[in-house]
Formats: sequence, structure tokens, C-alpha cells
Amino acid sequence: MTELFYLPPLFGLVGLILAFVIYGLIKRIPVTNKAIDVIADRIHLGAMVFMHREYKMLFIFSLVLGIFLYFSLGANTTLAFVVGAVSSAAAGYIGMFTATKANVRTTQAAHDTGAASALSVAFMGGSVMGLCVASMGLLGLGMLYWYFGDDPATAHVIHGFGMGASSVALFSRVGGGIFTKSADVGADLVGKIEAGIPEDDPRNPGVIADNVGDNVGDVAGMGSDIFESYCGSMIATIAIASTLVMSDLGSRETLMFLPLGLASTGLICSVLGILLVKMMSANKPDVALRAGTIGAAVLFVIAAWFVIQQAGISANVWWSVVAGAVGGIIIGLVTEYYTAGSPIRKIAKSGETGPATVMITGLAIGMQSVVIPVLTLCAIIYISTSLSGLYGVGIAAVGMLATVGITMAIDAYGPVADNAGGIAEMGGLGKETRDITDSLDELGNTTAAIGKGFAIGAAALAALAIIAAFVETMTLKYPNFTLHLGDPMVLTGLFIGGVLPFLIASITMTAVGDAAFEMIQEIRRQFKEIAGLMEGTAEPDTARCVDIATKAALKKMILPGVLAVAVPPLVGFIIGPHALGGMLGGALLGCVLLALMMANSGGAWDNAKKHVEKGNFGGKGSDVHAATVVGDTVGDPFKDTSGPSMNILINVMAIVSLVIAPLL
Amino acid sequence: MTELFYLPPLFGLVGLILAFVIYGLIKRIPVTNKAIDVIADRIHLGAMVFMHREYKMLFIFSLVLGIFLYFSLGANTTLAFVVGAVSSAAAGYIGMFTATKANVRTTQAAHDTGAASALSVAFMGGSVMGLCVASMGLLGLGMLYWYFGDDPATAHVIHGFGMGASSVALFSRVGGGIFTKSADVGADLVGKIEAGIPEDDPRNPGVIADNVGDNVGDVAGMGSDIFESYCGSMIATIAIASTLVMSDLGSRETLMFLPLGLASTGLICSVLGILLVKMMSANKPDVALRAGTIGAAVLFVIAAWFVIQQAGISANVWWSVVAGAVGGIIIGLVTEYYTAGSPIRKIAKSGETGPATVMITGLAIGMQSVVIPVLTLCAIIYISTSLSGLYGVGIAAVGMLATVGITMAIDAYGPVADNAGGIAEMGGLGKETRDITDSLDELGNTTAAIGKGFAIGAAALAALAIIAAFVETMTLKYPNFTLHLGDPMVLTGLFIGGVLPFLIASITMTAVGDAAFEMIQEIRRQFKEIAGLMEGTAEPDTARCVDIATKAALKKMILPGVLAVAVPPLVGFIIGPHALGGMLGGALLGCVLLALMMANSGGAWDNAKKHVEKGNFGGKGSDVHAATVVGDTVGDPFKDTSGPSMNILINVMAIVSLVIAPLL
Repeated sequence: MTELFYLPPLFGLVGLILAFVIYGLIKRIPVTNKAIDVIADRIHLGAMVFMHREYKMLFIFSLVLGIFLYFSLGANTTLAFVVGAVSSAAAGYIGMFTATKANVRTTQAAHDTGAASALSVAFMGGSVMGLCVASMGLLGLGMLYWYFGDDPATAHVIHGFGMGASSVALFSRVGGGIFTKSADVGADLVGKIEAGIPEDDPRNPGVIADNVGDNVGDVAGMGSDIFESYCGSMIATIAIASTLVMSDLGSRETLMFLPLGLASTGLICSVLGILLVKMMSANKPDVALRAGTIGAAVLFVIAAWFVIQQAGISANVWWSVVAGAVGGIIIGLVTEYYTAGSPIRKIAKSGETGPATVMITGLAIGMQSVVIPVLTLCAIIYISTSLSGLYGVGIAAVGMLATVGITMAIDAYGPVADNAGGIAEMGGLGKETRDITDSLDELGNTTAAIGKGFAIGAAALAALAIIAAFVETMTLKYPNFTLHLGDPMVLTGLFIGGVLPFLIASITMTAVGDAAFEMIQEIRRQFKEIAGLMEGTAEPDTARCVDIATKAALKKMILPGVLAVAVPPLVGFIIGPHALGGMLGGALLGCVLLALMMANSGGAWDNAKKHVEKGNFGGKGSDVHAATVVGDTVGDPFKDTSGPSMNILINVMAIVSLVIAPLL
Repeated sequence: MTELFYLPPLFGLVGLILAFVIYGLIKRIPVTNKAIDVIADRIHLGAMVFMHREYKMLFIFSLVLGIFLYFSLGANTTLAFVVGAVSSAAAGYIGMFTATKANVRTTQAAHDTGAASALSVAFMGGSVMGLCVASMGLLGLGMLYWYFGDDPATAHVIHGFGMGASSVALFSRVGGGIFTKSADVGADLVGKIEAGIPEDDPRNPGVIADNVGDNVGDVAGMGSDIFESYCGSMIATIAIASTLVMSDLGSRETLMFLPLGLASTGLICSVLGILLVKMMSANKPDVALRAGTIGAAVLFVIAAWFVIQQAGISANVWWSVVAGAVGGIIIGLVTEYYTAGSPIRKIAKSGETGPATVMITGLAIGMQSVVIPVLTLCAIIYISTSLSGLYGVGIAAVGMLATVGITMAIDAYGPVADNAGGIAEMGGLGKETRDITDSLDELGNTTAAIGKGFAIGAAALAALAIIAAFVETMTLKYPNFTLHLGDPMVLTGLFIGGVLPFLIASITMTAVGDAAFEMIQEIRRQFKEIAGLMEGTAEPDTARCVDIATKAALKKMILPGVLAVAVPPLVGFIIGPHALGGMLGGALLGCVLLALMMANSGGAWDNAKKHVEKGNFGGKGSDVHAATVVGDTVGDPFKDTSGPSMNILINVMAIVSLVIAPLL
């Protein structure tokens, strides 16, 4: 088996080269319109400034954590931690760099050639992010496995990789989420509601920050989130497999290597899916994107069959893969229903009786929307474990995430298209161009919602697999280790774990509220003090707004970040490993429920507002519209800050627990 | 020991007689003002009509459930079920009947004699509810224990009592909650916001329904909720004790009887506390009420020491009682902080940037507010179990609930004072009277918030004790029964359990939204069609609004009710007892978190609005006020419908599981 160990990093390298080739293709498209080039440069610059400052902070954080790891778990784990952090950071950096080049070229293509080529450019921009996530994961994790993986005694070193990836994700997702929504809420509240100017109007000082936010939050943040789940699911499965000395599923060596093998297969399928979308870009955009995703998934499931057969592993494991892959699609579809189906019309209608009923209806829909996804998770757990034991949960997560190359590409396509629309509006490219970018953007909203559902499902399953790996590790150490719910320690842990998602959601929502408040004051000040701004004769100071959002985001992500990393060792060392196990259970449950509820409420409010804006229930400017704007504003931190933070929270806590397990 | 078995029912009987005496005292106060007499009659009648129709439905529901119990668990359990249902229903009926007599007499006293006598009347009205809850619990449960309790083999029969109490609570709390908030939201949205008339304005057709709602929701609903927790904690503790064949805490017989003994002691302390409030009613109202509650609690803790000593039970058990009693006070105080302290000023301030930021801030505060209460619960669990094992959790719950006579009296005082204010406004009794009732009402809001926090804590602890009893029962049957979190079945159950609170919250919130929508249409119609209504020359058709709220409440409580009762047997029989155990754990966690969050968000929004109305941030009629009204409207179903439903949900599911445990 060891003779194949070079393959995952090789595939990773090839994928990365492909990503660079696509980047080159995008870069070759000339931006002929000077006006939009300047706007795009500002967005690019703002995003880069944020990224650099965020990474500087991340560096300090990682240094502290790295020193701690070095003295507690040794050099190898620390090395893995560094590789994980660098891999994730690199994927996010390259992906976002590309996205801020692709956005303006999408606008240009929409203006010069039309919808098909605009879709193609936007999707190519997204696919660089998708390929980077998959490739950096395979490259980094694959290299470490090549060195450490052949000996089950050293395989635990790669847990450090997961912790590195999680640390980056924590900062990217939480910091990016706070940035994007403080800018968005601030720009909307003053621009749309108070000044009465349209979204993305160049006179609005907050509009560049808003567009920067789409990149740092929805491209880099989302990428690091998925990267973490992707690597986490592999690491957990390897860890579980390493405890299986005797298994009727297959030999321990092949079971340990299978996650990387499946992920490599998935990368090939993703590339084929990306090609399929590219070939079909003349069709309706949603048809092209759907064909790519589903095509890649079907291909992967078929290919996985042969991989598993070839490796001499039980067919039961394949069924677990299928459970994960199908489950991911179901969760995505349910999310689509709640954020684009009849519920959004219900919310829009409730706007007839004002913002309060919009809130009540949206919250109720969000709460209801957790039911089917969570039951789907239950079904995945049930099917996969009854077929392949705990290993099945891990492999189901890998199955769900294997085609991450294309799902992430489609996710990242959304903010590129959104930015393209913003640039078209700010550059005054006219209605025709704007109509094209609008249609791409609308599709992007749907794909983003599906992507979010998928990300939550994947994060939950990955976290569950990591928790299972934690329990297995503890059982190796203490053969009688069980997390009996009737044990007061486990119960105490369960309650503490349940509280954490609520606390983190509260902190991040307050952060957005506070940062948006500063942003509102600044935008109001500029409207008041800069003469000629409203008339379009003076320029707004957009850099100042970017700076406010950056500072706020960097400051306010510290507390949730520290909490997520510090609570597991505190509980583990002070109250004990049973409480820690219970805590992970409670936190998993709380995170999944809140993440789904917040993402779906937020998405539904957003689209309810858009539904009204299309002329329903009185259309733009009506009281119903004003009521749905309130819903959308509340939904912003729900769906883009606090909700997504839940994915990271549970995964960080799970991976930290797994890393410290040998010390407990 | 058996020679003392007659004492609890005797104390219950005496308490009940006391309640009737107090009722007689209230009834003797003549209502001389004809105008307010008519209004009060309407409220009384509306409440009674709702109650009768609700109980009719409850009768059918209980009949079906009773037949099912008869054929599965025999005549004795069915008898206990009937006694439990009748006891709870009787307590609710008497308490609410009295409250709807005391409200108008409070108004009269405020008008004729002043604040001190008004406080006295309102509190006497509430204390009838308090005494009824405690007395009916002791009478009903005590009688059953007298017959069945001396033999551990038949002691399980009394579980049926808990199920009966839970069934009534389910309907009273959920139905009452939907009634009260659909009326409140409907009356407020049209009256205050659209028509611009003050709260409780007699021209508003929904205002009688709103006042009826206070009685059916906050008096009868709250009473049945507390009644259920009160009896549930005793039943669970008895059940846990019955499994303790050998214990160093004391003899099984005394441990089994102790909950009833402590509750009897608590009733005496409550009566003394009520007398203390009465004696101090010339002081500031909040001083009087606080002296009564804390006095009763301190007295109880001291008395409990002697009871436990006398019974030859370990002092460790006493410490568990103290943990419960102190924990209850802490949770109440935290609730007070979040719903009356600095957080409400923060919400009010956030109104400066509109309703969206009011929502974000309020939700964030609600989420944050779960932390300390849940950690307090953890501390109670930790302390009580490390001192007295699982029995400690049960006895801590009993300790928290023993002085229910006075805590419930203070809870029920709130809606009586609220009603008194409404009647003064509708009857046009002038500013002086209204000022007195307003100050009583304001205090009532705080006590209601504290009461809600207390009710959640008590319900959680009672449910936990019942779940512990369920686990012990299963362990007796299957000695290897453990709920290991690593077991996929337990995990699946945990997820299913976690979903249920979100689903029930969604259903009940939607129910309020839908019912309020009907109410709004009707009130708008009356304002439009009844000529002279706004001018005060024509009467509104208030009965029609009461009818709408009644029908909506009765219809919409069926689905959550059936779900709560049906899911445990479905999960238990189809997926298995491990999944059922996991489900109870997940549901407990979810219910506690949502209940606290919703109650505290709702309470904070309500008081933020009141804070603005006092002239802060622009006062009444300002944009900030309008923004906080939106918060309050969303908070209404949060704090008075969905949040409180969580207490019942987890207790119903726990007690149903305990009842069906022998069949699994």
C-alpha cells in the first residue's frame, strides 16, 4: 500500500497547477473599461489589506499555539500544525486573489460578449478556489501521511494538521463574517433606507467595504470552512481506522489510506465536473452548474466503487460513501426549498402586517428548517454505522466532501457574480449589463444557500467523526471509557457544550451590531460632511469604511477564537475527559441546530426581500418592502456571521480535543 | 413511616381550605363602580368560556389516553392519571376564577383606598393560585401515595399522576399561550400602531381578549406548568428512591417519603411567607414581595434540616436541598438582570438605528442570557449528585419547588395587577388610579420574568430527575442499560431530541402569527365597519375577538400536543429505548436553551419598550419607540407562548417515557 502514498500529494500538485492555469486564463482577459478597473482595484486592495492584517494576527495566534503544541506534543505535531495552517491560508489567499481579479472580468464579459462568457469567467474564478481547497488539502495532508502515516503509532501526528486548518478557519470565517456583515448592514441601513439610494450606488461610502466583504467572508471564509471539514473528515477517518486492529471491513492499512484515495478520486471527478460546466456555459446557467455538481457526484460514487473493490475493502464501506454523498445532496435541496421555495413567499406576505410578523415568520421557518436536515444526518449515522461501525461515519463524511472541488467552485462563483454586479452598478455600465450580472447573482444566491446547507451538513459529519476518533482514542487509553448520559459529569459537559453555540452566536451577532453601528456613524458623517457627495460631484472616502470594518473584525474575532480553542482543554483538564466528551456532544447538537436555523432564516429573509423587490406585495418602496428589509438586515449576521461560525466552533473544539486526548 | 402518610394530603386539604377563605375575603370586597364591573364581567366570562371549551377538549384527549393507559398499564395507573389531570385542572380553574374576581377589586381598591390595599388584594388573588397549586399537588399525590406508596412494587402507579398533570399543562400552557399572544399582538398592532390609541383603550375590540389572555395564559397556564414541575420532581424522586435498596443516605422508605415531607414543610413556609407579604403590604410593594419569597425560602431550608435529621436521613441530602433552593434563586436573579438591568437599555439604544438592530441586540442578549442559568444547573447537578447520587438531583428539584405556594402566588399576582390596570384604563378611572395600578403592574412584570426563569430552572431539574428515574427503571430491567454517547442509537436519539424544541417552537410561533393575523383582520374590520367606534359613541364587538382567539388556540394546540405525547412511544418502540434515552437528553438540552433564550429575549424587548415609553431615547411616538414596539411584538410569542411551551414539552416527554418504560 505504501507504494501508492505518493499519489494524493501528486494529485494535489496537479490540481494546484490546473488552478494556476485557470488563473492565467482569467488574468489574460483585458479590462478595457478604466472606470470599472479602478473600482475593482479598490476592492482587490481592500481585500488584500484585510487578508494581510488578518494573517499577521493569525501568525501570532499560531505562534503561541505552536509553542504550546511543541512542548506538550512534540515537534512532529507542531510541524503538522504549521503545514495545516499554511495550506489553509494559502488556499484562501490564492482563491480570494483570483476572485478579486475574476469579478471585474465577469463584468467586462457581461458588457462585451454576453451572459455565456460572463458565466464562464465567474465560474472559472470560483473554480480556482474550489481546486485550491481540494488540492492544498491533498497536497498538505498527503505529504504528512506519506511521512507519518504508514506507522499507526505516528499517524496521530496528522491531527496537528487539522488543528492548523481549524485555526485559520476560525479567524477567516469569524473575522470575515464580522467584516462582511458590518459593512453590508452599515451600507444598507444608511444608503438604502436613510439616503434612499440603490444598492451598490457609487455615492455610498460603504459600498466598497461591502464588496470587499463578499470576498473575505464568502470566498476566503467559506473556503477555509470547507477546507477544515474536508481535511477534518479525512483525519478523523484515518484516526478511527488506526484503532481497527481487526476488522472485517478490510486491512487496517487500506482502511487508513482509503480517505485520501477517495479524496484523490473526488478531485479528478471535480475537475471533470468543472470541465462539464465550462462546456455547457452556453446553456442556462443553473442547468450548467447543476450538471457539473451532480455529474461529478455521480461519477465519484461510481469511481469509489471501483476504488473500494480494488483495495479489497468491504462493499459496506461503499454504501457508507453513498449515504454521505446522497445525504449531502438532500440537505442542499432542503436548504434550497427553505431559502427559495414557498416559505419565502410566506415571509413576504407576512410583511403586510409589518416587520414584527416578518421576524416571527422568518424565525419560525428557520426553526422548522432544521428538522429534515438533522433527520438526514440521523439517517446517515444510522446507515453508515450499521454497515461499517464508527468508521462508516467518517467515510460518509469523506464521501460527502470528496467532490469539494466543484461544490466549493460553485460556492465561490456566487460572490464573484455578486461583485461583478456591484462593479457594473458602480461603473454605470447600463441596464443590459446589469441584467446579465443580476441573473448570475440571483443564481449565486441560490447556490450559496445550497452551499451553506452542504457546509453545515459536512461540518457536522466531520465533527462527529472527529468526536468518534476522540472517543476511540480515549478508549484505547482507558478501556472502560464510556460517555453515559446518566453520568453527572457527562451531563454537566453536555450542558456546557450546549451553551457554547449560544454564547458564540451572541458574541458574533453583537460584534456585527457594534461594528455596523460604527459604520453607520461614519457613512452618515460622510453624507453630511462631504459636500456634493449625494449629487455625485464628490468622491466618498471608501478606504475609511474598509478600515473600520477591518479593525472591528480583527478586534472582535479574538474572544470567540480564544473561547473555541481554550474551552476544551479547560473542561478536559479541570472537570475531566468525561465532561469533555459530553461537552462535544452538546456543542455538536447546539451548533448544528443553530447553524441550520440561522443560515436558513437568513437566506429566506434575503430572498423574501428580493421577492418583494420583483414587484410582489407592492414592490420596492412599499411598506411591505420596508418590513422585509428589516428581516434581511437581521438575517445578514444570522446567515453570514454567526451561523457559519458554528461550523468552525464545533470542528475546532473537536479537533483540539482529539489533539489533547493523549494528555488527558 | 406509613403512620405519617396521611399528613401530606391533610396539609393539602388545609391549604385548600385556606385558599377558599382567601377567596371569600376577596369576594366580600364590593365592586361599587358599575362601569368596571361590566368590563370585569366580560373578562371573567371570556376566560371561563375559554376554560370550559379547553377542558372539554382536554376531556376527549384524556379519555383516549386513559383508555390506552388502561389496556397497557392497568386500572391503577389510569386512576392515577385521572387524579393527576383532575388535580391540575381544578387548581388552574380555581386559581383563574379567583384571579378574574381579584383584578377588578384591585382596581377598586386602588381607586378607593390606595396602593397598599390594592397590592394586598392583587396579592391575595395570586396567593389563591399559589395555594391551590401546592395544595392540590399534596392532596392528589399524597392520597395516591397513601394507597400505593408503601409498597415499592406498586409505587410506580403514581407516575400516572404526573402524566395526567402533564397533559393538562400541555393544553393549558400551549393553548393559553397561543390565546394570550394572538390577542395581544393583534390588539397592539392595530390599536397602538395603526389606530394610534393607547394600550387597553376601550375602543379597541381586541382589548378584552387581551385581558382574558393574561388570565388563561399567565395564571392558568403558568399554574399548570409549575404544578407539573412540582409534582414531577416529587414523582421522580420517589421513583429514584424506590430503586435504592441499599443506600447510605437513609432507609428506602424514608427516602421515598421525603419529597412529600419536604413539600408539606414547604407549604407551611409558603403560608407563612404569604402572611408576611400581607403584613408588609404597607411597605414598598417590591420589598413586601421579596421579603415573602426569601423569608419562605430561608424558613424552608432551616425546617428541612430538622425534617431530614428527624427522619434519620444523611445531611448530604439536606445540602442537595440547599443547592436546589439557592440555584432557583440565582436563576431568578439572572433573569431579573437580563430583563430589567442594563441589557434593556442597550436594546433601547439600538432602536436609534431601527427595528433591525433592536432585533439583533435582543436576540444576542437572549442567547447570552442562557449561560449563567445553565451553568447554575450544572453546578446543582454536580453538587447534588456528588453528595447524594441521582437521588440528589431529584431532591434538589424538590428543594427548588417546595415553596411553590409563594413563588406561584407572586407569579399570579402579575397578571392580576396587569388586568387591574387594563380595567382602570377601560373604565376611565383617571390618572391617579392608573398610576397605582401601573406601579403594581411594573413590579408584576419583573416578578413574572423572575418567575419564568424559576419555572424554566425547576422544569429542567424536574425533567432531569424524571429522565434519571427513566434510566434507573430501564437499568432495573436491563442491567447493562447505558446511554453511551458513542452509541449511534443514542446519538440518533440525541439529534431527534434536539430537533423537537425547534419544531415545537416553530409550530407555536406560527400559530400565534396566524391567529394574530385573523385577529388583526377582525379588528381592522370593526374599526372600518362600526360607525362611531373611534369616536367612542359605538361599542366594539369584543366577544367576537375572544371567540377568534379561543378557536385559534384550541385548534392550534392539537399538533404540538399530539407530537409531545406521541414521539416518545414512537421512538421508544420503533428505534428502541437507547434512542429514547438519547432523545430525552437532546430534548432536555434544546428545551432549556430555547426556553431561557426566548423568555429572556422577550422579557428584555418588553422592558426596553417600556424604558423608551418612560421618556428615554425620544419617548413615546418616536422612531426609537416604534423600533422597540417591533421588538416587543416579536418577544410576545417568544416569552409567553413558545418559550413556556418548552417546559411542558420536555416534562411531558420525560413522564411519558417513564410511564411506558415497563413496556419497552
